Amino acid sequence: MPGLLLDTLHGKTTDRRPVWLMRQAGRYLPEYRALRAAKGGFLELVHDSQAAAEITLQPVRRFGFDGAILFSDILVVPHALGQDLAFLAGEGPQLSPPLVDLALEALQPAPERLDPIYRTVALVREQLGPQTTLLGFAGSPWTVATYMIAGEGSRDQAAARSLAYRDPAALQAILDAIVACSIDYLVRQVEAGAEAVQLFDSWAGSLAPREFERWVIAPTAAIVEAFRRRQPGVPVIGFPKGAGEKLAAYARETGVDAIGLDETIDPAWAHSALPDGLPVQGNLDPLLLRAGGDELEARAREILTAFAGRPHVFNLGHGIDKDTPVAHVERLLAVVRG
Amino acid sequence: MPGLLLDTLHGKTTDRRPVWLMRQAGRYLPEYRALRAAKGGFLELVHDSQAAAEITLQPVRRFGFDGAILFSDILVVPHALGQDLAFLAGEGPQLSPPLVDLALEALQPAPERLDPIYRTVALVREQLGPQTTLLGFAGSPWTVATYMIAGEGSRDQAAARSLAYRDPAALQAILDAIVACSIDYLVRQVEAGAEAVQLFDSWAGSLAPREFERWVIAPTAAIVEAFRRRQPGVPVIGFPKGAGEKLAAYARETGVDAIGLDETIDPAWAHSALPDGLPVQGNLDPLLLRAGGDELEARAREILTAFAGRPHVFNLGHGIDKDTPVAHVERLLAVVRG
Repeated sequence: MPGLLLDTLHGKTTDRRPVWLMRQAGRYLPEYRALRAAKGGFLELVHDSQAAAEITLQPVRRFGFDGAILFSDILVVPHALGQDLAFLAGEGPQLSPPLVDLALEALQPAPERLDPIYRTVALVREQLGPQTTLLGFAGSPWTVATYMIAGEGSRDQAAARSLAYRDPAALQAILDAIVACSIDYLVRQVEAGAEAVQLFDSWAGSLAPREFERWVIAPTAAIVEAFRRRQPGVPVIGFPKGAGEKLAAYARETGVDAIGLDETIDPAWAHSALPDGLPVQGNLDPLLLRAGGDELEARAREILTAFAGRPHVFNLGHGIDKDTPVAHVERLLAVVRG
Repeated sequence: MPGLLLDTLHGKTTDRRPVWLMRQAGRYLPEYRALRAAKGGFLELVHDSQAAAEITLQPVRRFGFDGAILFSDILVVPHALGQDLAFLAGEGPQLSPPLVDLALEALQPAPERLDPIYRTVALVREQLGPQTTLLGFAGSPWTVATYMIAGEGSRDQAAARSLAYRDPAALQAILDAIVACSIDYLVRQVEAGAEAVQLFDSWAGSLAPREFERWVIAPTAAIVEAFRRRQPGVPVIGFPKGAGEKLAAYARETGVDAIGLDETIDPAWAHSALPDGLPVQGNLDPLLLRAGGDELEARAREILTAFAGRPHVFNLGHGIDKDTPVAHVERLLAVVRG
């Protein structure tokens, strides 16, 4: 009995919707803040398999979510490709050296840096009930590349977008390396106990349409195809944030088993534009969950209604905001669970 | 004989496309940099009608664009509503006091702050040939409100988006004030010589679908309706950047005469999703114009082809990048002019 979330990702339409929240293992939870205060920085926690497993399990214990998402970060892949990685307080992630003027070959790959993460997955799986689906993940190649090239987050991903025009072969080489590493990374998460995986493409929305085809759809399709060959039957959720009207092409062409919708997407449009029967995930505005109130309840019901005819995993449109009251999560869950 | 741009905005399909570039009066031009070095800061130039008129005319003289866009800024409306406005080097605009915890009534409106801008419009019109269309503009209420509330630019407009959920009446009051001021502002630009106007909605893309209806479409429709009553026959271009699949609703419901497309929009999708005959404007990626090369030429031709059956103003998907070589603009114009 695989559980409601996995059933839904396999295309089963259920009356009671499975629910989990992106970034559910994180700062809005007092038990996470306590553990972090005791144990140190974000990356230290990611690399401490006992702590990371505990953090992954915290929201499942508290709320009984249908999915447990591995506590980690998409930038562990650049780290495994040989960049140094640091999370500086108040400044966000730093990858060095940045690849904006440096060839990929200058990096010394270090795939063993991912080993603690596989141990985390195994520890979580041991402690998780059979009804709760363990979700692994990776960043999508385009989004990961934007960080590797700039060396940090950037407002409009201009460094990577410019490289795409100036030297597409250089960008292709970076993406190829990310694709190869991500396939292994996802396969090994499944070997360690993950039952489905999500590809987070936070910056899919910044590209022009042909660039979207080449740098978002094509590398995602390459991962899905290779992953499926090595792990048949394990669903892949694609989440191309900001893809807007290009979601339909993404759904048709990448081969993902389910598609995550950000909060700007009109559920009625998505239901009509996406292939029949394709599972969707989303898409409540995290800021509405933070704000709470009757509007939260009304909007959650609207989303449930809009996707009544389709396999649907209830989720936010992106990660839960750190200032979200726990009581608002409880209220949302009461609505989704009916 | 009104000129190619105005003809197109009135719905005429032409073989040779009119062309202008968002932010064409600006830092990529050596003559602008020289004038700015001599005369001082950005806001001082906006308020110096002689200088602002000269800057507006510079790109028209150099490139013979079909449109001259007024050199100004969308934040002159909050300034007229009583906020202090400053542009700090390297930090972007600052509006004070921010409205995040302050009622609108605390501001003392100062509509006379817009007077220099009307003088700029008149000075430009005097010096502009009859074939060149003078474009006035304002920010769209939602985008202007995001700055008024946060007091500055912000990555994801979280302050305004949160206010929308926490206290929609407060946000509505701010938008109503912006709408009223913007209508007068646009009408008076036309009285001074503007022949078409554009509403820039840079942050239209950050809203969930019902919020998009309420905070983008409704106030835009209110401006269009009142403006049209007072200035019948003067086209309004709406530019809801990032609207994605919600562009179709925007086009149907706001009443704008033409619609600007950002560079992420697939021209083929836009052509099929937008009402027949609605003029469109766009949508080359500014970063491709900066990069140049054969790809620039190929992509410009694709855009021309995609919109061959529809009134189309060639433009970028947003403002020209300050590091764009002038030679790339010349090459683009050669392609567009055939």
